[in-house]
Amino acid sequence: MHSPTAIAREDAAQTAAAVLDRLRSGAPRVHCITNAVAQNFTANVLLAAGAVPSMTLSGEEIGAFVARSNALLVNLGTFDRERREATSIAVGSAAQNGLPWVLDPVFVDRAPQRADYARDLIYLGPKAIRLNHAEFSTLAGSAPSTESVAAYARARNTVIGLSGETDLVTDGARLTTIANGHALMAKVTAMGCAVSALVAACHAVEPDAWRATIAGLVIAGVAGELAAAKAGGPGSFAVAILDELHNLNERTLLSRARTEIAKAK
Amino acid sequence: MHSPTAIAREDAAQTAAAVLDRLRSGAPRVHCITNAVAQNFTANVLLAAGAVPSMTLSGEEIGAFVARSNALLVNLGTFDRERREATSIAVGSAAQNGLPWVLDPVFVDRAPQRADYARDLIYLGPKAIRLNHAEFSTLAGSAPSTESVAAYARARNTVIGLSGETDLVTDGARLTTIANGHALMAKVTAMGCAVSALVAACHAVEPDAWRATIAGLVIAGVAGELAAAKAGGPGSFAVAILDELHNLNERTLLSRARTEIAKAK
Amino acid sequence: MHSPTAIAREDAAQTAAAVLDRLRSGAPRVHCITNAVAQNFTANVLLAAGAVPSMTLSGEEIGAFVARSNALLVNLGTFDRERREATSIAVGSAAQNGLPWVLDPVFVDRAPQRADYARDLIYLGPKAIRLNHAEFSTLAGSAPSTESVAAYARARNTVIGLSGETDLVTDGARLTTIANGHALMAKVTAMGCAVSALVAACHAVEPDAWRATIAGLVIAGVAGELAAAKAGGPGSFAVAILDELHNLNERTLLSRARTEIAKAK
Repeated sequence: MHSPTAIAREDAAQTAAAVLDRLRSGAPRVHCITNAVAQNFTANVLLAAGAVPSMTLSGEEIGAFVARSNALLVNLGTFDRERREATSIAVGSAAQNGLPWVLDPVFVDRAPQRADYARDLIYLGPKAIRLNHAEFSTLAGSAPSTESVAAYARARNTVIGLSGETDLVTDGARLTTIANGHALMAKVTAMGCAVSALVAACHAVEPDAWRATIAGLVIAGVAGELAAAKAGGPGSFAVAILDELHNLNERTLLSRARTEIAKAK
Repeated sequence: MHSPTAIAREDAAQTAAAVLDRLRSGAPRVHCITNAVAQNFTANVLLAAGAVPSMTLSGEEIGAFVARSNALLVNLGTFDRERREATSIAVGSAAQNGLPWVLDPVFVDRAPQRADYARDLIYLGPKAIRLNHAEFSTLAGSAPSTESVAAYARARNTVIGLSGETDLVTDGARLTTIANGHALMAKVTAMGCAVSALVAACHAVEPDAWRATIAGLVIAGVAGELAAAKAGGPGSFAVAILDELHNLNERTLLSRARTEIAKAK
Repeated sequence: MHSPTAIAREDAAQTAAAVLDRLRSGAPRVHCITNAVAQNFTANVLLAAGAVPSMTLSGEEIGAFVARSNALLVNLGTFDRERREATSIAVGSAAQNGLPWVLDPVFVDRAPQRADYARDLIYLGPKAIRLNHAEFSTLAGSAPSTESVAAYARARNTVIGLSGETDLVTDGARLTTIANGHALMAKVTAMGCAVSALVAACHAVEPDAWRATIAGLVIAGVAGELAAAKAGGPGSFAVAILDELHNLNERTLLSRARTEIAKAK
């Protein structure tokens, strides 16, 4: 029986710093299938971090867009025929072109059809799944624990990025927790969706899916803390996090990353 | 012949303060059918005030979402097949689950099809209708006056929240005017739509539809005045109103609410 | 063989100032067919500059909306069946009502279907086309130069507003370059789409399509520079440009416009 082992604090922070640097120098294209609520903020988060977003959902052209991208995000935030058709084509195009894709199964705990659909998508091999506790419980059929999340990641051959007060990232063999972030992040709509898009962008420049997921969550969490220190509420926070993502430097990332070594079981 | 009577100033302000308190402690779920222009800002306004928004329009799942919500907003800002199907299902689900819903008949004065559709919806029993003078005139066939608005509310067995320089809220028997708000609110797209969503959130925690509508308009108006005092233009105003909604306290609401007793006729 | 001649610096700045004044006094209605990413920001840019946006895409009512508007924007940012139907009806309604319309062929360099569709639309007679270098190259089949852009404008009987480090505006006979703007404009999603909508608004109040296009680009560029001077990153920049558009005055426009006389060839 495997037991997840953890990445050291310095390593996780350095991974995040290296990935941020590659985002800015590489300007990877990230195609996002996401809901209308999230599209604008998601695109701005990607641009602020150095990536180049595209968002079309049209079945006639999404294949061409994905083929010219470096990573794909599939977010279930709005679940309609158009987005499902787009997702089929996009995931197929990603597979054909060897692109990493990330799944954010938003709100699968609210409607059973959405959970069924997410389960089908997971068979198609996302490099990472980013979700919260309620969403994990719905998909896995049990509450998240270090062991249950690692077992789920192993069984699906993917990386799980579980968000919560402390984030947990595991590929089933390796596991790290991230204690960055701020409560105001939950007061801005589409913040989670945008963070998932940032994770997808990190996959475009970091082939180790587990490290890419850690990098995205550390970058978002540190930017969130810096933004909260300057914000007067959720409105100014949403503005400030874009500024902080744009201005973030390696030294700040290294000094503020709060990744923890999980207890081996 | 009825004549509307007015709620006293203190009572309206206290209602608003009590409702805001219940929004924050209850965190009611508010499902919103609204246009793509408005979705993001509407969700952020709800989150800032303490409510939890959802926005899906998919016919396959909107029933499930509404059934798990505490109130529903139907905004006609974009009028297409998808939203009409979604509206049918959502209003049915609201009726079946005893949920209050609020109608915002945006732009019914611009296209006759939209006005016809709004009239059909009004037969389905929204707890409140929030609209401006041009929209009221189109639906009622006459310009708004204290008497015509009260008569319309009585005939439709609903509450009318008429926005303007001074807002007017009546259920046909009771009437109050609200003089809060700021001119910059008209310079931010979807501000009216977001205020209607806030009104819907208030209905989730206040069963008296007339008081719930007053509460929503007072909270929005006071937050708008506070935001305008800090803003340098419409961009910073839209940010500041989210901060102010998040930070608003009972004392400020009580001291700044400008509700007036209408003259009895 | 024609050679484009240039408008003098003072003239371009004065045109922009006069057009801004007419935007504010006339409050023209501008109907926008644009993508979901851009709708909110586009509407806020129009409101900040003094225009009144509408955004519906519904085939049943878009004709009525356009007929009651003063200008139309067609942006290809999302390319789907709904938007193509809407575009057909809207362009037809614009032609019937003698309204100017502006085309923004976003991302035609990314998918061939989109380029084909843009070419078809150009036959229908937009007053101006606003695009970047990659988009021009795709549509024209050659890289942009003063001569190739002027020749393209002449052949299509339209105005080309080519954005870049220096913008170029020509109707084939007249040509001016505009050196306003700031690098942060490329770090805010939908900034280009919103500027195109502002150009459409200028067409609503200035019948000379070449001057209207210059005015829109000068107003946006100057507001962008003023915003950048106050911003700490792309988040605060997007907020500040709305404030600056709202507060912009004639004196600032005249002193900051950096339009250049192109060399006659």
